Amino acid sequence: MEVSARNQIKGTVKELNADQVMAEVVLTLPGGAELVSVITAASAKRLNLAVGKEITIIIKSTDVMLASE
Amino acid sequence: MEVSARNQIKGTVKELNADQVMAEVVLTLPGGAELVSVITAASAKRLNLAVGKEITIIIKSTDVMLASE
Amino acid sequence: MEVSARNQIKGTVKELNADQVMAEVVLTLPGGAELVSVITAASAKRLNLAVGKEITIIIKSTDVMLASE
Amino acid sequence: MEVSARNQIKGTVKELNADQVMAEVVLTLPGGAELVSVITAASAKRLNLAVGKEITIIIKSTDVMLASE
Amino acid sequence: MEVSARNQIKGTVKELNADQVMAEVVLTLPGGAELVSVITAASAKRLNLAVGKEITIIIKSTDVMLASE
Amino acid sequence: MEVSARNQIKGTVKELNADQVMAEVVLTLPGGAELVSVITAASAKRLNLAVGKEITIIIKSTDVMLASE
Repeated sequence: MEVSARNQIKGTVKELNADQVMAEVVLTLPGGAELVSVITAASAKRLNLAVGKEITIIIKSTDVMLASE
Repeated sequence: MEVSARNQIKGTVKELNADQVMAEVVLTLPGGAELVSVITAASAKRLNLAVGKEITIIIKSTDVMLASE
Repeated sequence: MEVSARNQIKGTVKELNADQVMAEVVLTLPGGAELVSVITAASAKRLNLAVGKEITIIIKSTDVMLASE
Repeated sequence: MEVSARNQIKGTVKELNADQVMAEVVLTLPGGAELVSVITAASAKRLNLAVGKEITIIIKSTDVMLASE
Repeated sequence: MEVSARNQIKGTVKELNADQVMAEVVLTLPGGAELVSVITAASAKRLNLAVGKEITIIIKSTDVMLASE
Repeated sequence: MEVSARNQIKGTVKELNADQVMAEVVLTLPGGAELVSVITAASAKRLNLAVGKEITIIIKSTDVMLASE
């Protein structure tokens, strides 16, 4: 499946913290950088997320903000 | 300034393509991966974006989607 | 590929209107209802969008607002 | 009230699951398809959401992603 | 119509700048502060936006980021 | 730090309500209007949010919707 969201990066689940409705997922990128994702707890379950699992990170280009010093 | 958006990554502007309202910015991450950002043309101007400029990429955790094979 | 975004609906491209950076896509759902999507012109090209093409519509649950009379 | 968000669809509340901050609402569309919305628990209360209630679903066009096989 | 989006503020259109797909709207709040909105050009037309028009500004609570010095 | 998000307003924390993953923050603007923000509980902690604290509110222009009567 090809998705319109422009950004698709490989990552590994490092931490997973879920409550009743939402789940927070800490991801490690190949270079060692970390990214945090908050999805619904139901989606975390449906994707079988677990520490160590390799996943694809998808981000819409309009959700990527920039900042300069 | 400390921002609530959890994800803040360093990157370099690789390409810049603006029309009257919107601008598309291609960024290179330290490991070589690319990320695309779409912001308003006015913001691209205000941040003095130019090819080669180093910037900070900011992404809210609720905007980070995950996918598994 | 299984995506964390909870909502995935089938639709057909009815209209396509692109400028330099952004593209507007009018979609028809099976029941006849219409949905409008705005993505980057580059993504519309990459997905080979064209009038009549069948596609999957993906919407994050936190992007679905509700209103009552 | 006329809202700038392009997509406004009628739906019925099928399930409602709230915790302290967030609420998950499963909606049925006229054709039988389902859509999931995550809003704040306070908004779910303010809108008097309940199973069986008819509501309007509002989605911004920039939040509608597309995917092709 | 009662909308789940928590934030609804009154404002006045100060500037309007549209291209083929997108429109940028500068708004003045009662206290004099300014807010910028980017919506589709089609929505700007549908809402009959014009300089001086009074409108309601709607923002989802998950789209409000915070920063501290 | 200069951020691409166009809207940056000063505000004061009026209420703070957090659960395990998410936090809801009620903010007062200089003119007396209120704005609600939902961020992760971890970000609320990292920013040392507390009732009475002055903060900067940041909103992307594509997240500002408009409505007319």
